[in-house]
Amino acid sequence: MLVDKIRNRESGIILYGIVPPKKGTPPERVAEIAALQKQRIAPLPVDGLILYDIQDEESRTSEERPFPFMETLDCFDYSRNQLADLDMPKILYRASGKYSEEELTEFLQQASDTENMTVFVGASSKDQPVTMSIHEAYALKQRVRPELLIGGVTIPERHRAKGNEHLRVLEKIREGCSFFVSQGVYDLQASKDFLSDYYYYSREHAIPMVPIIFTLTPCGSVQTLNFMKWLGISIPRWLENELVNAHDILEESVNYSEQNWKDLKAFADKLGIPVGCNIESVAVRKVEVEASIELLQRIANR
Amino acid sequence: MLVDKIRNRESGIILYGIVPPKKGTPPERVAEIAALQKQRIAPLPVDGLILYDIQDEESRTSEERPFPFMETLDCFDYSRNQLADLDMPKILYRASGKYSEEELTEFLQQASDTENMTVFVGASSKDQPVTMSIHEAYALKQRVRPELLIGGVTIPERHRAKGNEHLRVLEKIREGCSFFVSQGVYDLQASKDFLSDYYYYSREHAIPMVPIIFTLTPCGSVQTLNFMKWLGISIPRWLENELVNAHDILEESVNYSEQNWKDLKAFADKLGIPVGCNIESVAVRKVEVEASIELLQRIANR
Repeated sequence: MLVDKIRNRESGIILYGIVPPKKGTPPERVAEIAALQKQRIAPLPVDGLILYDIQDEESRTSEERPFPFMETLDCFDYSRNQLADLDMPKILYRASGKYSEEELTEFLQQASDTENMTVFVGASSKDQPVTMSIHEAYALKQRVRPELLIGGVTIPERHRAKGNEHLRVLEKIREGCSFFVSQGVYDLQASKDFLSDYYYYSREHAIPMVPIIFTLTPCGSVQTLNFMKWLGISIPRWLENELVNAHDILEESVNYSEQNWKDLKAFADKLGIPVGCNIESVAVRKVEVEASIELLQRIANR
Repeated sequence: MLVDKIRNRESGIILYGIVPPKKGTPPERVAEIAALQKQRIAPLPVDGLILYDIQDEESRTSEERPFPFMETLDCFDYSRNQLADLDMPKILYRASGKYSEEELTEFLQQASDTENMTVFVGASSKDQPVTMSIHEAYALKQRVRPELLIGGVTIPERHRAKGNEHLRVLEKIREGCSFFVSQGVYDLQASKDFLSDYYYYSREHAIPMVPIIFTLTPCGSVQTLNFMKWLGISIPRWLENELVNAHDILEESVNYSEQNWKDLKAFADKLGIPVGCNIESVAVRKVEVEASIELLQRIANR
């Protein structure tokens, strides 16, 4: 059970991440998409499913978004209405600054503490208007549903510039987070830098570490690559060159993601840091989604 | 023969680097040191020996130098007077801004074009007073001894900040350089970033690549680590943590250096970039020098 694995701070958790269909999709089409997703996901050797809550990040950067922003169906509604018979725990994302206190309270009260978990996502920039700060959202959750497991978001790239991502994670642990899910990871060195400081700081201060789940995402085109960069995913220069010049960018990106995970896992295992991985496709193209399934199977079968 | 390997742009060149004894060392002691160095170096499976020309880099940084600066004996004199019977090509470094045009001309005229090569080192900062720029020194060499092989210095870390190290290298190739020796390398990602841009730019412009020789140097103490950082060697955060917390920092640094070389070589081989390595000890402690020999043997025996 995922809940137990997280409470026991286990290493090796594997998740798969999806985005609900976009808002305005006709109900029959929603049902079709859900059927297809369930067919794909049910046989996967995963511990749980992440359902994202997409927010428009236009205030984060002035660069044009390579793919248009599309609002999606509410992931909790979609999970309950369409994926109820998909027998695995669901981790429901909540861009906490989008909801009123009442809405977030209602969500927390309705979530199952065995079949659901949540991850709150804060504002994507200081300029984004929010109903409440992420810290207020954490406090609300601790008041309303202390027993519900909640995770935090971590961005290892941030550690390169600021060097304090491990302290942000440790603060969120104090605020109630029991696991972390990273943004998509292509920068192995930044991820190791963050894990290393997380480990040595926790050891020095005798703080038990919680699982850090790294997100891996295949890249099937230069457009997807640009979208990942737009999302703030840092891609080492050499890897960008290799992908752009690859005969088969998708296959190469799956190979590099598998290798990155292998290296990260070996590094974490050596120090005893609990890590896991979450595989998703940032693009909706069929071949990219299928590549994410292949990546997951390769990793699960290691 | 090293000269042929460089002219043929071969991969896999292995060098060992030393610093001559410090100025003012009594002649008997110089002879003793030379005997010891020859004994160590003669059996090594290397293509050549680098002799450094140390310059005071105090203008480069305001931070205190962890080890005191000591002027050394002239490396060409030391090579001719003490190491003549060490049967391997010697690569003589010249901090070109230290010498008058006459001195540098005399050096170039006396160097052997089969048994010697040279590497010119430019100013360590814009504030360092110099007799001539590195470009003037290259031009002088091309006038005086066009047939003598000359190498350039490359600093892969610079590529991370400026992204143009490959263009600097290509400019130096136009100025006559036939190979490059890096500063000590601990930052694998920066080295791969530089190599990748070097490769794709050269391919696009149909410029034949020359060998890039990466310098590896063991680290036997936190003081040496700080000295390497003072020298401008970038050490990833995770690796610094691992070294500082290691039971045996020297052994760990040898392991990581070997692994870095293995990864760099595999990356370069895949693309067909000619690379080599140069092993040195930045510290003079016996255990650190011996560790550099061990590292060299491990790499040569791969």
